[in-house]
Amino acid sequence: MLRGTFEKTLEQYKGILENIGKYVTLTNEETEKLIAIIRTTKIKKRQFIDQPNYVCQYRNYVVKGAFRSYFIDNEGKEHTVQIALEDWFVSDFYSYITQTPATLFVEALEDSTILQMTYDDIEGLCKEIHALSEYFRISTERAFAFSRKRALSNLSLTAEERYLELLNRYPNMIKRVPQKVIASYLGFTPEFLSKIRRDLASKS
Amino acid sequence: MLRGTFEKTLEQYKGILENIGKYVTLTNEETEKLIAIIRTTKIKKRQFIDQPNYVCQYRNYVVKGAFRSYFIDNEGKEHTVQIALEDWFVSDFYSYITQTPATLFVEALEDSTILQMTYDDIEGLCKEIHALSEYFRISTERAFAFSRKRALSNLSLTAEERYLELLNRYPNMIKRVPQKVIASYLGFTPEFLSKIRRDLASKS
Repeated sequence: MLRGTFEKTLEQYKGILENIGKYVTLTNEETEKLIAIIRTTKIKKRQFIDQPNYVCQYRNYVVKGAFRSYFIDNEGKEHTVQIALEDWFVSDFYSYITQTPATLFVEALEDSTILQMTYDDIEGLCKEIHALSEYFRISTERAFAFSRKRALSNLSLTAEERYLELLNRYPNMIKRVPQKVIASYLGFTPEFLSKIRRDLASKS
Repeated sequence: MLRGTFEKTLEQYKGILENIGKYVTLTNEETEKLIAIIRTTKIKKRQFIDQPNYVCQYRNYVVKGAFRSYFIDNEGKEHTVQIALEDWFVSDFYSYITQTPATLFVEALEDSTILQMTYDDIEGLCKEIHALSEYFRISTERAFAFSRKRALSNLSLTAEERYLELLNRYPNMIKRVPQKVIASYLGFTPEFLSKIRRDLASKS
């Protein structure tokens, strides 16, 4: 790759390369190999990138925009499993890892841009590049640990405390994501979330 | 290491080496380096290997025995987060990954033997040995994916279906682990689990 082109390309993949750089150092050659397996895709608001019965093909990295993954139970009730903004990965992770049909919907909440890498491409490159294997090992271990912690928070915090925790950690999320999605993510009804917000407003 | 000694050692670590062998191939030299960071520990029934306020020092692999990890909420109610039998890893994973104080209890349900590896030793060896990095990457990705699937099962299956799923997948677990622990793991009261078992017995 020519030097000028390489630098321009680096700018395009700045977010994911900085994220990787938090954990490991890739050589220029390794960075080029990684970029070669990335496909940049624009997704319109309300478009789905995963849906039940289709195998999740890509590990998706959010460059710009917002997504939610959700599940519809037998009573037709929606449960929001994940909300993802910039620099998060989002997919039906079980479907992706096992390469079996998905059970989740993954929907764009805004017009978005994502980076997509297929399962086979990532597996191949992790076998070839030790540092990339380390990146996915460490970042997945952390995501798993934080997901366990979130499950414990749901057991130990009150509804109001859980809302405040989300508000403090991700003030952006509360502003950008519809209230009914936030409510579903926290396991509340939209009415209950409105009540909590009214109560908090009257206290401050 | 002498050949005879090495073969004897391999026998001692058969379970974990077979588990690793499902995903990657270690050279003899890499296997020796891994074995060098493993400490074998015997744990008495009812003994704790992790508890709140202490940093989880080890990734623990169960060679023989059974463990449960649980959390006590503000009302004093126990929630069983994980049950682990032979060839499973068990710890307060958030505490281990972040090296911060634990919030879970991890307790032996039987006299047990475990293999223990410290966070620093594993991190060091994963940086050195590409295949070991791959093993922990792939096994953690699978554990995370299955944990997500379990959370969805809790939303989509009836109580009876969840009990039957556990019974079919881990018939051994139901036999060896106290009913109140199984009930707490499934989110039931012990009385409700007894009712399900009576209902199933009367059907068969």
